[in-house]
Amino acid sequence: MNTLIVFSHPEPQSFNGELKNIAIETLQCLGHSVEVSDLYAENFDPVERPSHFPDRSVVDTFQPLTEQRQAFQRQTLPTDVQRELARLERADLVILQFPLWWHSLPAMLKGWFDRVMVYGGVYSGSMRYDRGYFRGKRAICAVTTGSPAAAFSPHGRGGDMAKLMWPMHCSLYYLGMDVLAPQVIHGVQGGELSYQNETEFRHRLKQETSNWADRLTHLTSDAPIPFSGWADWDDNGVLKAEHPLAWR
Amino acid sequence: MNTLIVFSHPEPQSFNGELKNIAIETLQCLGHSVEVSDLYAENFDPVERPSHFPDRSVVDTFQPLTEQRQAFQRQTLPTDVQRELARLERADLVILQFPLWWHSLPAMLKGWFDRVMVYGGVYSGSMRYDRGYFRGKRAICAVTTGSPAAAFSPHGRGGDMAKLMWPMHCSLYYLGMDVLAPQVIHGVQGGELSYQNETEFRHRLKQETSNWADRLTHLTSDAPIPFSGWADWDDNGVLKAEHPLAWR
Repeated sequence: MNTLIVFSHPEPQSFNGELKNIAIETLQCLGHSVEVSDLYAENFDPVERPSHFPDRSVVDTFQPLTEQRQAFQRQTLPTDVQRELARLERADLVILQFPLWWHSLPAMLKGWFDRVMVYGGVYSGSMRYDRGYFRGKRAICAVTTGSPAAAFSPHGRGGDMAKLMWPMHCSLYYLGMDVLAPQVIHGVQGGELSYQNETEFRHRLKQETSNWADRLTHLTSDAPIPFSGWADWDDNGVLKAEHPLAWR
Repeated sequence: MNTLIVFSHPEPQSFNGELKNIAIETLQCLGHSVEVSDLYAENFDPVERPSHFPDRSVVDTFQPLTEQRQAFQRQTLPTDVQRELARLERADLVILQFPLWWHSLPAMLKGWFDRVMVYGGVYSGSMRYDRGYFRGKRAICAVTTGSPAAAFSPHGRGGDMAKLMWPMHCSLYYLGMDVLAPQVIHGVQGGELSYQNETEFRHRLKQETSNWADRLTHLTSDAPIPFSGWADWDDNGVLKAEHPLAWR
């Protein structure tokens, strides 16, 4: 199996960095190949902007999707986007490793979606969801938070973690991937800014890394999160009235 | 009233640009002052990274929150972050104007949160939610999508719009702001990539700009989205068991 780890943390020595390293070791031990997109180290530009398309299809106004499609067709996509797409093509499993910042992905990783997932290349009106380009690939978010798990429980003040993950899970499914339940590690806040006992915290992190290593051994067989698909929708893209879930 | 419009679209001539211009005109006509953070035009860097903190508190590893807090205290925050904070201080109403990209904010605007909302400056463990720094300010997202409204209805394949907006609304409330129901304009996809009749589409857009202008006249009196607050939570930051909403 080929794995792509998309790593989005500015500090290699961070706990996110450790989780990334553990994934590399564990997967390689299992005989899988591992590739890493280290977005910060590679100085990825997360901003979709006109300068990425020097040879524009429409010159007077910048229309990102139109330019993405033309650049894909002409094979003139920016080098970094081409590199990321090639990595995705090779991958059977994609791991997004990142800290939850402001209830979502760090801008760096958000921009990886904005720029790499090119219209007319890896998705279109007819090529998405369970007819998506990346059908057959699996994806998982491995995410750390800075607050205790209780804060992200369904009635927690941080917001229900499942709801915070929903938009990114939608994006991965939109691309056709099987989305696995995320590996979430809460309360990753030690040192000076900590609200917890440092010894217990370090002990817990150790346990969490070991849990992650265990989880990695069965990602290929874990059941993906269920999503509705084309067969479930009416012509407007809405769950059919007779669908068992439509009463909710 | 002072308004800050945070504009995050790479093309000034886009429909997002038009909505931004209408907001400026309308609010100025009403006698309000308007300031614009044009993130693309000002070449804002959305990536929180070590280079923004040349004089580090911790040298061997980069800890974003620690560095944000020190730079805030020493008044050595990056110039662009200081500028954005000064704009926020002046604002009574904040309008975030952006297109929905990949079920969320464009990376550019996401990074505005990551970098500008500095730890130890505009939030801390005790200064957030209804005790947040920006208490008394109002915020609204004015957002465009590229699919028909039905796709973003509760059972639509695009994902329920209210759920997609949830993480950003959480962030705004976390900062203490009163969050207004978003102004959402669906199906902003014309020209070549359009799935709709161009004449009807242009007509609808005109109606939408007029709706937005109307909405702008009563943003000061619109009721904000209700959120729970400190008085509703137990010591773990979870809705108290006896809270009327806790049975859900």
